[in-house]
Amino acid sequence: MSIKPLGSRVVIKRLEAEEKTKSGIVLTGAAKERPQEALVVAVGPGEVLDGKVVPMEVKVDDKVLYSKYAGTEVKVDGEEFVIVKQDDILAIVE
Amino acid sequence: MSIKPLGSRVVIKRLEAEEKTKSGIVLTGAAKERPQEALVVAVGPGEVLDGKVVPMEVKVDDKVLYSKYAGTEVKVDGEEFVIVKQDDILAIVE
Amino acid sequence: MSIKPLGSRVVIKRLEAEEKTKSGIVLTGAAKERPQEALVVAVGPGEVLDGKVVPMEVKVDDKVLYSKYAGTEVKVDGEEFVIVKQDDILAIVE
Amino acid sequence: MSIKPLGSRVVIKRLEAEEKTKSGIVLTGAAKERPQEALVVAVGPGEVLDGKVVPMEVKVDDKVLYSKYAGTEVKVDGEEFVIVKQDDILAIVE
Amino acid sequence: MSIKPLGSRVVIKRLEAEEKTKSGIVLTGAAKERPQEALVVAVGPGEVLDGKVVPMEVKVDDKVLYSKYAGTEVKVDGEEFVIVKQDDILAIVE
Amino acid sequence: MSIKPLGSRVVIKRLEAEEKTKSGIVLTGAAKERPQEALVVAVGPGEVLDGKVVPMEVKVDDKVLYSKYAGTEVKVDGEEFVIVKQDDILAIVE
Amino acid sequence: MSIKPLGSRVVIKRLEAEEKTKSGIVLTGAAKERPQEALVVAVGPGEVLDGKVVPMEVKVDDKVLYSKYAGTEVKVDGEEFVIVKQDDILAIVE
Repeated sequence: MSIKPLGSRVVIKRLEAEEKTKSGIVLTGAAKERPQEALVVAVGPGEVLDGKVVPMEVKVDDKVLYSKYAGTEVKVDGEEFVIVKQDDILAIVE
Repeated sequence: MSIKPLGSRVVIKRLEAEEKTKSGIVLTGAAKERPQEALVVAVGPGEVLDGKVVPMEVKVDDKVLYSKYAGTEVKVDGEEFVIVKQDDILAIVE
Repeated sequence: MSIKPLGSRVVIKRLEAEEKTKSGIVLTGAAKERPQEALVVAVGPGEVLDGKVVPMEVKVDDKVLYSKYAGTEVKVDGEEFVIVKQDDILAIVE
Repeated sequence: MSIKPLGSRVVIKRLEAEEKTKSGIVLTGAAKERPQEALVVAVGPGEVLDGKVVPMEVKVDDKVLYSKYAGTEVKVDGEEFVIVKQDDILAIVE
Repeated sequence: MSIKPLGSRVVIKRLEAEEKTKSGIVLTGAAKERPQEALVVAVGPGEVLDGKVVPMEVKVDDKVLYSKYAGTEVKVDGEEFVIVKQDDILAIVE
Repeated sequence: MSIKPLGSRVVIKRLEAEEKTKSGIVLTGAAKERPQEALVVAVGPGEVLDGKVVPMEVKVDDKVLYSKYAGTEVKVDGEEFVIVKQDDILAIVE
Repeated sequence: MSIKPLGSRVVIKRLEAEEKTKSGIVLTGAAKERPQEALVVAVGPGEVLDGKVVPMEVKVDDKVLYSKYAGTEVKVDGEEFVIVKQDDILAIVE
C-alpha cells in the first residue's frame, strides 16, 4: 500500500532520536523529547498558486527537521506516518 | 438520489476500520478510534481562483485519508456521508 | 413581495425533514434535528472577484444541503427564509 | 445636511416593523425584535479593488434586509441612521 | 508644527457636540456621548495597492463621521488630534 | 556599530517628552506617559509586494509619531532603540 | 552535518550577551535576558510569491537582531540553533 499526498503535503516517518545524557545513559520512552527529525516518504505534486504549480523543495529520502506537533498522524498497514504541509518542514539535514 | 458537491468539495463515505489489538481482539464501537479512511463518492467541479477553475486532485472511488473532525456529516436516504473540502483530504491511499 | 439577494448570496427555504425513529414514531418539534435540506428560492448575481463576476453554481428550485447554523434567518410576509452565502451550500441533491 | 458615505458604505434608515402577534396584539418597544428592514438613504462610490471601482448593487430608495447588529449608528440633525458596508446588506426586497 | 500622516491615514480634530436633552439642558463632560464628528486636518498620500496609489476620498476641511474608538489620539503642541485610517471614516457630512 | 533594518522596518529613537502639568511641574519618570514621538535613525529598503519594492515614506532624521507599544525594543552598544514596521508610524511631524 | 533551511527560513546561532550590571557584576544564566543577537548560519532559497522567488536580504555570517521567542529551536550534533523566518529578523548589525 502506498500513500500519495495531495497539494503541498509531504508524508514523513519520524526518526527515533538515539540520545545520550551527559552521564552516558540512553534515554527511552517518555524521558525523551518528541522527535523533530524525520525521513521524507512521499511528496505531493505541489500547491497551485495563481494558476501555476509551485514546485516542491523536498524529495523522497530527504532527512528533514519539522515543527513539533505539526501535521496529522496516520497509521497505514500498522506503520505510523505524519502528513505535514511542506511549510511545516523547517530544513533539510545533510 | 445523488449528491453533487459544490466548488472544491468532495463527498466521502467513511470506511470502517477493522482493527485488532495486539491480543487479537477486534475492537468495535466506542473503543475504536474515529476512522480517517474514506471512499470518494462524488467530486465537485473545483474552486474558481483568479477566474480559472483549479482542477480537482481526487476522483470517485479513490480511497483517501482525511483530517479527523473535518467536514459536515449529512444523511441522505438513510446513508451517512461526510462533505469535506478537498483541502481536508490529506492523501490518496493506493 | 420578492427578495433579490446581493453578491453570492442565495435565499433558501428549509425543507421540513419527515423523520421516523427506528420504532416508527414520527418526531416533531424540538425532538428533531435542525434541518439541513433546503430549496433555493432566489440566487444573487454572483461575487465580483478580480473585476469579474464569478457565475453562481446553484439555481432556483435546486434542492440543496447547507451548513447547519449558516446564514441569517429573515421573515418576509410572514414566511421564513434563510439567506446564505453560496459558500455555505455544500451540495445539490438530485 | 446630507451624508456621503465612503467606499462601499451605505447609509440606511431602519423601517419600524409593524408586527402583530397571533392574538392580534401590536407589539411595541422592547417586546419587538430588532428590525432588519431598512431604506437606503445614501450610497458610497464603491470600493477600489485591483485599481478598479467595484460598482454598487444597491441604490437610494431600495428597501433592503441587512444583518442584525451590523454597522454603526449615527445621529445627524436628530435623525438616526445606520452606516453599513454593502457586504452587510443581504438582499433587496421588492 | 504640522503633521503629515502616512499612507491612507487622516488626521482629524474632534468636533464637540453641543447636545441638548429633551428638557433643554446642555450636557457637558462625562454625561455626553463620545463624539463621532470631526474635521479633517491633514490627509496622507494614499495607500499603495498593486503598485498603484489609491487616491484618497476625503480632503482637508471635510466634516466627517468616524468609527467611535478608532484611531490613535496624539497631542501635538498641546492640541489633541486623532489619527485614523481613512477606512475608519464612515461618511462625509455636508 | 550601525543597524540596517530589513524590509519595511524602521529604527527609531524615542524622544523624551518635556511635559509640564498645568501647575507648571515638569513630570519625570513613571509619572509621564509613554512617549509617542521618535526620531528616525535607519530605514529599511522597503517591502517587496507583487515583485516590486514599495518605496519607503520616511527618511533618516524625520521626527515621527508612532503607535504606542508597537515594535521591538533593542539595545545596541548600551543605547535603546525601537524597531517598528513603517506601518506602525502614524505621521511625520514637521 | 549541515542544515539547509526551506523557503524564506534562516538558521541562526544565538550570540551570548556578555552583560555587565551597573555594579560591574557579569551576569550569567537565568539572571540574563534572553539574547536577541544571533549569527546567520544558513539561508533558505527564498519564498515563492506570485511565481517569483523573493531574494533573501540576509546572508551567512551576518550578525542579526531577531524577535525574542520567534522561531523553533533545534539541536543538531549537540549544537543548538534557531530556525526563523526571515520576517522575524529585524535588522542586520554591522
